[in-house]
Amino acid sequence: MNAGDSLRRLRETKPLVHQITNYVVMNETANATLALGALPVMAHAREEVEEMVGLAGALVLNIGTLSPDWVEAMLLAGRAANDAGTPVVLDPVGAGATRYRTETAKRLLDEIGVAVLRGNAGEVATLVGIDAEVRGVESIDTGADPAELARAAGKQLGLVASVTGPVDHVSDGETVVAVSNGHELMASITGTGCMSTALTGCFLAVNREQPLDGAVEALVAFGVAGEDAARGANGPGSFHVALYDALAALDPDTLDGRARAA
Amino acid sequence: MNAGDSLRRLRETKPLVHQITNYVVMNETANATLALGALPVMAHAREEVEEMVGLAGALVLNIGTLSPDWVEAMLLAGRAANDAGTPVVLDPVGAGATRYRTETAKRLLDEIGVAVLRGNAGEVATLVGIDAEVRGVESIDTGADPAELARAAGKQLGLVASVTGPVDHVSDGETVVAVSNGHELMASITGTGCMSTALTGCFLAVNREQPLDGAVEALVAFGVAGEDAARGANGPGSFHVALYDALAALDPDTLDGRARAA
Amino acid sequence: MNAGDSLRRLRETKPLVHQITNYVVMNETANATLALGALPVMAHAREEVEEMVGLAGALVLNIGTLSPDWVEAMLLAGRAANDAGTPVVLDPVGAGATRYRTETAKRLLDEIGVAVLRGNAGEVATLVGIDAEVRGVESIDTGADPAELARAAGKQLGLVASVTGPVDHVSDGETVVAVSNGHELMASITGTGCMSTALTGCFLAVNREQPLDGAVEALVAFGVAGEDAARGANGPGSFHVALYDALAALDPDTLDGRARAA
Repeated sequence: MNAGDSLRRLRETKPLVHQITNYVVMNETANATLALGALPVMAHAREEVEEMVGLAGALVLNIGTLSPDWVEAMLLAGRAANDAGTPVVLDPVGAGATRYRTETAKRLLDEIGVAVLRGNAGEVATLVGIDAEVRGVESIDTGADPAELARAAGKQLGLVASVTGPVDHVSDGETVVAVSNGHELMASITGTGCMSTALTGCFLAVNREQPLDGAVEALVAFGVAGEDAARGANGPGSFHVALYDALAALDPDTLDGRARAA
Repeated sequence: MNAGDSLRRLRETKPLVHQITNYVVMNETANATLALGALPVMAHAREEVEEMVGLAGALVLNIGTLSPDWVEAMLLAGRAANDAGTPVVLDPVGAGATRYRTETAKRLLDEIGVAVLRGNAGEVATLVGIDAEVRGVESIDTGADPAELARAAGKQLGLVASVTGPVDHVSDGETVVAVSNGHELMASITGTGCMSTALTGCFLAVNREQPLDGAVEALVAFGVAGEDAARGANGPGSFHVALYDALAALDPDTLDGRARAA
Repeated sequence: MNAGDSLRRLRETKPLVHQITNYVVMNETANATLALGALPVMAHAREEVEEMVGLAGALVLNIGTLSPDWVEAMLLAGRAANDAGTPVVLDPVGAGATRYRTETAKRLLDEIGVAVLRGNAGEVATLVGIDAEVRGVESIDTGADPAELARAAGKQLGLVASVTGPVDHVSDGETVVAVSNGHELMASITGTGCMSTALTGCFLAVNREQPLDGAVEALVAFGVAGEDAARGANGPGSFHVALYDALAALDPDTLDGRARAA
């Protein structure tokens, strides 16, 4: 892992990150992508997703406000990304809360080669068949040890599982990396999970062959930005604003020294 | 009415508030819900709304950017909420501006048991057959006295009417409560009406049998937060940010003392 | 051009500006419209767009997250606006990036009378048949001189072309006005292009017979607000917030003195 080098490369090459995501966070993930230094594009029409993903360095799929037309577009885009060797990140928002979300997340995992699955413990546990309580889109509790959950998900699904929470755990099914960066204010605003997924897409675009590294680097960068944003924040509103400032101000030279990843 | 107790209960129980709302304000109402202390979830697919509302403590319907598929989902979700005894709040955004909005709002009122109708004077007047000028989604003028409008709407529609404006009026058709909390900067940003609807859903989730109390408490809490946010704001942008900080900082111990409700 | 007079008129008459725009920026363009002093309304259902545009002083069409149903609504609304003599602004977001976007933008230009086309150099070059590199929704490079591009687009398409970039160029095919107001932080957040399109709609609503003036005034006002917002901003997040404060604080008495338009 070398988050600073990746960030430097990202800002030099400005990869396009194609996002088919939910209505609630589109503005947030686009602005987080831009603030980090990549270029976001949102496009969901079946008429164009395959062509758009052909221009992209990574594809981000997020089922936060899913409906059948959007799911079809995700499948088309995902297959086109697979054909082109473009990495795909999936955020299974709310898997476990409704059958439609669980089944859609499973269908996407079945039909598309996903490089990184980024979710909370409840969502990921649901997808590997562990009982979990998911209320709406919030993970309440899973009995599972989060490091073991990430490892099991990575192994069973054949991808990198990035399970975020108070401490994040990222695993390719063998190695497990725990990332302790971040701040509790990140849980006070909607869309921080989705932002971490979008930033994972950004780092994958400059780490096409090292999805484990890319996923870890994204959480380190986002966590460090969260720590910076928390200083001086008076609550969720001012924290949210400062988060974009902090992403834009991330310093590649000091990023790895601030990483709490082991 | 005891806004402080309700807020305390809400922060302890963190009810899920299912919102089928418009594209413009989804992020805003989700963040306002979170800042207050409840859990938002946005889901609009017919494939899942009935299951999702089964997890929720309240359902919020808002027709701000309506289209036929979304209206069908609102009807499904509303009937499921009624079957489960889950309170429903309706925001008839733009009723009176186009026939489609007026007819959709009426259809929702006809086919769903609505606990609280939260709208501006023009929208509510339209729905009880009083001539009103509604320009787009802004209420321009109704000849009606707002307290009488709230009472007439509550009585005629058999629900709690929450008519917001410079002074808000909430009525179950008998009692009318006037709420004078708030700040004029609240009218300077889009979505404050929709936020008040979402917060009404939050307070109803902890006041299932007292919709009049819940509706009043929501407007008191939101108004007090608006007053706090206005201090130090330089305009609509900084006010908007401070509003989330202020919602999160609302103090249950002082809330009722600050209420201007009579 | 008299931006101050137009702004004064806009704040007095508060025209309704009907926007059929993309999911990413709806909240942003609504808030920018409100902060300037006009009234935004978002409505995209075929069931109501013709009636809604009948209430409006201008119609803004933006294909940033297009899909077939939305394109049909844009055509219906655009024709209704034409019948009523209501000015139409088109933002061809991403034209050149995918065939679907290019063809949709061309179709809208063919079937609707557009008063002002507001885009970046790559998008506008694509629509007049000049080779351009468009990556996602960002304009990368066109060989063309931007003043000549604006003039050629204005002449060929029979409208006012408003080509924004580090320096903006606005032309009706004969006159070319260069606008140098603005700040580089405007490129650091998503949606500033879309906001400038929405504000163009606002200024057209009070300049129905002078689309060249309206388009220039909008870019002057937005650029001056950007300059004000940049003072004290720590990055894209705080700049974004300050931009709404600055739009609301624009002073009609000093606006023309601060214009850098020639």
